[in-house]
Amino acid sequence: MKALTFDGDVAVRTVDDPTPGEGEALVRVRMAGICNTDLEIVRGYMGFRGVLGHEMVGVVESHPDPSWVGRRVTAEINLACGRCAWCARGLGRHCPTRTVLGISGKDGCFAERVTLPAANLHHLPDEVTDEAAVFVEPLAAAFEILEQIHVEPDARVLVLGDGKLGLLACMVLRHAGCSLTLAGKHPRKLAIAEALGVEVRRPDELGPEPFEVVVEATGAAAGLELALAHVRPRGTLVLKSTFHGAVELATAKLVIDEIRLIGSRCGSFPPAVRALAHGRVDPSPLLDAVFPLEDAVQALEHARRPGALKVALRVS
Amino acid sequence: MKALTFDGDVAVRTVDDPTPGEGEALVRVRMAGICNTDLEIVRGYMGFRGVLGHEMVGVVESHPDPSWVGRRVTAEINLACGRCAWCARGLGRHCPTRTVLGISGKDGCFAERVTLPAANLHHLPDEVTDEAAVFVEPLAAAFEILEQIHVEPDARVLVLGDGKLGLLACMVLRHAGCSLTLAGKHPRKLAIAEALGVEVRRPDELGPEPFEVVVEATGAAAGLELALAHVRPRGTLVLKSTFHGAVELATAKLVIDEIRLIGSRCGSFPPAVRALAHGRVDPSPLLDAVFPLEDAVQALEHARRPGALKVALRVS
Repeated sequence: MKALTFDGDVAVRTVDDPTPGEGEALVRVRMAGICNTDLEIVRGYMGFRGVLGHEMVGVVESHPDPSWVGRRVTAEINLACGRCAWCARGLGRHCPTRTVLGISGKDGCFAERVTLPAANLHHLPDEVTDEAAVFVEPLAAAFEILEQIHVEPDARVLVLGDGKLGLLACMVLRHAGCSLTLAGKHPRKLAIAEALGVEVRRPDELGPEPFEVVVEATGAAAGLELALAHVRPRGTLVLKSTFHGAVELATAKLVIDEIRLIGSRCGSFPPAVRALAHGRVDPSPLLDAVFPLEDAVQALEHARRPGALKVALRVS
Repeated sequence: MKALTFDGDVAVRTVDDPTPGEGEALVRVRMAGICNTDLEIVRGYMGFRGVLGHEMVGVVESHPDPSWVGRRVTAEINLACGRCAWCARGLGRHCPTRTVLGISGKDGCFAERVTLPAANLHHLPDEVTDEAAVFVEPLAAAFEILEQIHVEPDARVLVLGDGKLGLLACMVLRHAGCSLTLAGKHPRKLAIAEALGVEVRRPDELGPEPFEVVVEATGAAAGLELALAHVRPRGTLVLKSTFHGAVELATAKLVIDEIRLIGSRCGSFPPAVRALAHGRVDPSPLLDAVFPLEDAVQALEHARRPGALKVALRVS
């Protein structure tokens, strides 16, 4: 089969079809989304080698439970052991021996077929189009914020970064009833949030009044310091950006103002699937371009352009 | 009066007696404690100039309510406006226009007399000796951990740093019923914790099993990275160290493991006074040496020695 692989160099190559192991399903990929994490991996993040890709929608070709065959599904990206204390608590995404689809130790979904533990699959209702379904994984990451912290309806919340994750975070947080501001530099992206009633600002136009909650989703090292400058004492800073490298951090402000800084990664899928099925979140303005799998290298380049939003691959 | 002042250079100098303003009390200082923050200020932290010192016990000489005159007191160090939203919530220690005793905009207590807002004073029961009372402020900072996070009785908790704050944190946290480990490099200090039933380790002897809660109290820039290495996914890292400068932080671990990092500073005084009065915390093993105010420069030098614990000044 064809797959986009990374071995220090990124290219569409012909690789062996994967074979499902015990308890695993085989999924024919229909569509897959390119994430900034994929771009970071190509820059060295995680030291990953193999088939890239972790955002997907596909159709089940084989499954331990035959009633699943033919279903349209998306899949959780953390492959957990299913036996440890984390897995017992329903937090397999922190399982210490997990592999991660297309990120760590497990071939990803920029391929015609992918194997996954049956437990990772989520059935997609018909209301969720393929184009919406490629947003389930990043949308779940946005919902993760609400799983980790309680956003009060009268809180003032700032989202930093008008990229895909920042915009999805706005789409989720606006339902919490809070006063919501998005700071970004791209008029086209800010307009998407503004159309939803979110207040939008350039980062240098934020006033002096600090925010109770700041979500850092700039994807850049400088975002953390900017976020710290705008969070109020005893406020909460949700850190979403992952990137290759370290940041310089003056920790005195963290301590003096007793800031709560919370790292936030993947979320549970059902809230994201529900929000898409019920139309509470409409990610369609975030889809920039769709490329065939054959042109995946070009699609990565497209996704890397400044100002790009979601780029997806149509696989089958 | 005599006072230890810092104007780029630190010395005992003769300065004018302070005059209490409206709503303020005048306190004759009996004893004062030297904190690492004082040593950091002398290295440039906070850009402070004036009389140093913020840990004290004294006797009220004048007070808006005459019934306080003659009482032995300690004092909260944040001088709040009393009118803003923070003050209304009882969190004057985050009042944005506050000054801080001997740290920011307000002459401190390494002096024969100090003025303070009457609201900052706390009466000391007779059970609390002067020698114990100089620990109220740092002990309140240790109790602040329990005000910010819920430490479950079956949690595994690691305190990093066997200095004064690390040891006080152990003295507080051991009452939470948790499994408690202190990591430090000073056999004499570790022995103080061991005598209280705390498990003690050298930092390089900590096993691979991560902790649910890690309290970083090393006072050193390298402490944060060490703490991150020992906190489990979704765990809590309480950051206590303040120092002049920045640290290099690889934030990916914070995000991937969804660590909660909480800056922690001053605490409310009553829990500390109660713990001392009831004998639940006995700080006496932490008192290294007492110098007269005249020898305060020498006392600072003593406090700066590697391995030093609390050094106090006897003022009157």
